[in-house]
Amino acid sequence: MSSSSNPTRIAIDYALAMADAVGADGGVSEPELAHLEALHARALPAVMTRVDQGELGFLTLADDSNIVAQVREVRATLQPDARDALVLGIGGSSLGARALCEALSAPQLAPGTPERPRLHFPDNSDPWVLSHLLAALDPKATLVLVISKSGGTVETAAQLLVVREWLRAAVGEDGTRTRMVAITDPERGSLRAQARSNRWLSLPIPSNVGGRFSALTGVGMLPLCLAGGDLDGLQQGARAMAKRCSAPSLRDNPAGLLAALGFAHDVLRKHSVHVMMPYADRLRAFAAWYVQLWAESLGKRLDRNGQKVERGPTPLPAVGATDQHAQVQLFMEGPRDKLVTFIRVEQHERDLVIPRSDGSEAYLGGATLGALLDAERLATSEALASDGRPSITLHVERLDASAVGGLVMLYEMATALAGELYGVDAFDQPGVELGKRLAFGLLGREGYAETAAELRARQAARSDRYRC
Amino acid sequence: MSSSSNPTRIAIDYALAMADAVGADGGVSEPELAHLEALHARALPAVMTRVDQGELGFLTLADDSNIVAQVREVRATLQPDARDALVLGIGGSSLGARALCEALSAPQLAPGTPERPRLHFPDNSDPWVLSHLLAALDPKATLVLVISKSGGTVETAAQLLVVREWLRAAVGEDGTRTRMVAITDPERGSLRAQARSNRWLSLPIPSNVGGRFSALTGVGMLPLCLAGGDLDGLQQGARAMAKRCSAPSLRDNPAGLLAALGFAHDVLRKHSVHVMMPYADRLRAFAAWYVQLWAESLGKRLDRNGQKVERGPTPLPAVGATDQHAQVQLFMEGPRDKLVTFIRVEQHERDLVIPRSDGSEAYLGGATLGALLDAERLATSEALASDGRPSITLHVERLDASAVGGLVMLYEMATALAGELYGVDAFDQPGVELGKRLAFGLLGREGYAETAAELRARQAARSDRYRC
Repeated sequence: MSSSSNPTRIAIDYALAMADAVGADGGVSEPELAHLEALHARALPAVMTRVDQGELGFLTLADDSNIVAQVREVRATLQPDARDALVLGIGGSSLGARALCEALSAPQLAPGTPERPRLHFPDNSDPWVLSHLLAALDPKATLVLVISKSGGTVETAAQLLVVREWLRAAVGEDGTRTRMVAITDPERGSLRAQARSNRWLSLPIPSNVGGRFSALTGVGMLPLCLAGGDLDGLQQGARAMAKRCSAPSLRDNPAGLLAALGFAHDVLRKHSVHVMMPYADRLRAFAAWYVQLWAESLGKRLDRNGQKVERGPTPLPAVGATDQHAQVQLFMEGPRDKLVTFIRVEQHERDLVIPRSDGSEAYLGGATLGALLDAERLATSEALASDGRPSITLHVERLDASAVGGLVMLYEMATALAGELYGVDAFDQPGVELGKRLAFGLLGREGYAETAAELRARQAARSDRYRC
Repeated sequence: MSSSSNPTRIAIDYALAMADAVGADGGVSEPELAHLEALHARALPAVMTRVDQGELGFLTLADDSNIVAQVREVRATLQPDARDALVLGIGGSSLGARALCEALSAPQLAPGTPERPRLHFPDNSDPWVLSHLLAALDPKATLVLVISKSGGTVETAAQLLVVREWLRAAVGEDGTRTRMVAITDPERGSLRAQARSNRWLSLPIPSNVGGRFSALTGVGMLPLCLAGGDLDGLQQGARAMAKRCSAPSLRDNPAGLLAALGFAHDVLRKHSVHVMMPYADRLRAFAAWYVQLWAESLGKRLDRNGQKVERGPTPLPAVGATDQHAQVQLFMEGPRDKLVTFIRVEQHERDLVIPRSDGSEAYLGGATLGALLDAERLATSEALASDGRPSITLHVERLDASAVGGLVMLYEMATALAGELYGVDAFDQPGVELGKRLAFGLLGREGYAETAAELRARQAARSDRYRC
């Protein structure tokens, strides 16, 4: 890959997703690709118009050097001797930060240091993890980041109430002012109000950036800054990718290709399970981030005309080579309903040479673990293809901040474009409202008594016949 | 749940998987359940015959107190002042141990102690995690468990070569004898041979127990023992569950019900994505273990008569409440192709009370995080059901060793029975052989030159046209 022709140093190889290589049942044909080019020619301007009108903020986040400056300012103001940081947030308020930190910082095997506090992401309302954390950490040496786009996420609000009391008891109200950071909507919501009245530090999530598209705001950037990551490199890679992803021609637009191929394999070939399989442990959290992005954005009951469609591919996370010993049997021999995307890292940092030995493993001697990993990746994609099972491979030269910024932007834009192809709004999540209302009712929140009564009536009407 | 009628303290509620509750498009009808009872009446004896003939060993593992005795003996012989333990193994040689240790031991936030060494599971041939581990750990205070059923798993063999050299350089050949444990076939394979010639400690994986069914052998038991888990409780729960799972009547047989409902929803209702969604962080690794078990056992090209069927549901891991903010939008509004299994923990250890507050979260004050979690679980299952989307709920009284042993045995038996219903061999994995051969070829292993040449020819024949 020459860096002049491809400044993002990320290439997409989709030969094995085409009918040429995997046959007409598993691959997209040239005429179909031509049709997808026509769809892309409508989808791209539709997204760009929303970007230009300020409705969608994600695509230009990396142009905003203020984001980095604000993050660094907050970092500099925080308690300097903290050794741990709790990141309270769920869904888009956790997955993006994790994806960045896991990809771009070394695993923390020892307790944190003031230079690099150890990050914890208790993203659930399960008491298990949080209670162990609060028992183990020293509140005086702990930072607390609270992240919620709306400011009203119930799981995060509940965690905050618990953690705030724990912190206040140890450091007092004043002590929270160098330890607490609220990351939320710049104006609205209960978390913004609390931050103001308690004079906590804060960072904004722009109103036109949804939770699952917020990794490149303070949501992902402050945790990455604490983890010692390269914020400028991240932005630079995302910027370069945003530029590539505005290419009008489908064949030159990596996001357009991921959107079009995902859409075509799902809708035309019934390959509705979209596997994300990086051959890199550092991208496990990236795969989890992708799962939310793809599932929550594209899984929709209604299209944009209000017609019932009940669409959306099912993203499935995997990691190579590990899942060759768990899921690949199914991918190779099960129903032909999967499109696998491999991510290949060309140059592994800290590679290890396999020592020479006698016996049945002699052939491994002198190779590196990275080379073994790459042979497995290539072998798996070719084995799938030999049976007409499609895949795409992203080649990433080095897994540095620029590449990770590029990957994040690539999939955000692919998701926006896929929303256009599917004809759905990729930026809402109406399907979780009913569950929220029922939970509020069960918890006795004012105004939700009716939903609780409804739920209990439905339960009562059921017999206990189906129980074992 | 009374413990006399249900000694496993695990109950299955499948009302929301039935047509009564979710309608005929999403649920199983009474006549269909009757038909499934007839299928179960054939499937159960088929599995039991293989168990009785000694072909399948998993069902009786918990009857064997020798397993626990051998594990404890090895534990007692190991270097007493070790503070870390590396578990080298992949797939079934890692997932089961992780599932047990994560469910049954507290998260290790501090470095390990001699009483409870810290466990690490570098299960991939990715150099990133392993190189950081080797840089951080003191080889003198590190135990190394090497796990491979066949003894020839290439990723594990490569890791072992690297780690053995690292260990030998620090503690010498003699020092490895109190630090290395091989867990593998009792007789065959390269790892068994190495253990013999190097006089390493070892534990057997019975020949009639496949890797993904081996959690209740030394594979899972030695790591759990190091983590301070209750081995006897684990066996006791698994034994009680094995007994329940031999019930001839489908409606009394929890494994039979999971198998039959999974099969029926897949084959009769095209609900082919089987979501495992515990509302408990401690069961995240259990969900990953289930993914391998269900995918690798049931995803098969050929049925047992050699006919091409290309069957198998796609297991999908999730965790509540976290995935309400990631995947539930898709489950609620996307295609009607999913059957969700919730796991509910009734009594949460270390539960946390949410402090009282003013403002919009006042209603949470005085509730516990566990109660919040449970309200979310119930609300999500009811929201799905209200739109005709099916689910099953496992109610687990307390997440102790007995319950976890029960869950493991439950799903192993459900998988064996599902294999009968699907008409496939649940105990092989022929689909990964081609990928292995191609990888061997690429790595230059003797005897595989032809597959490498074949692969390279295929690559060369493809144009670079589909690259961006």
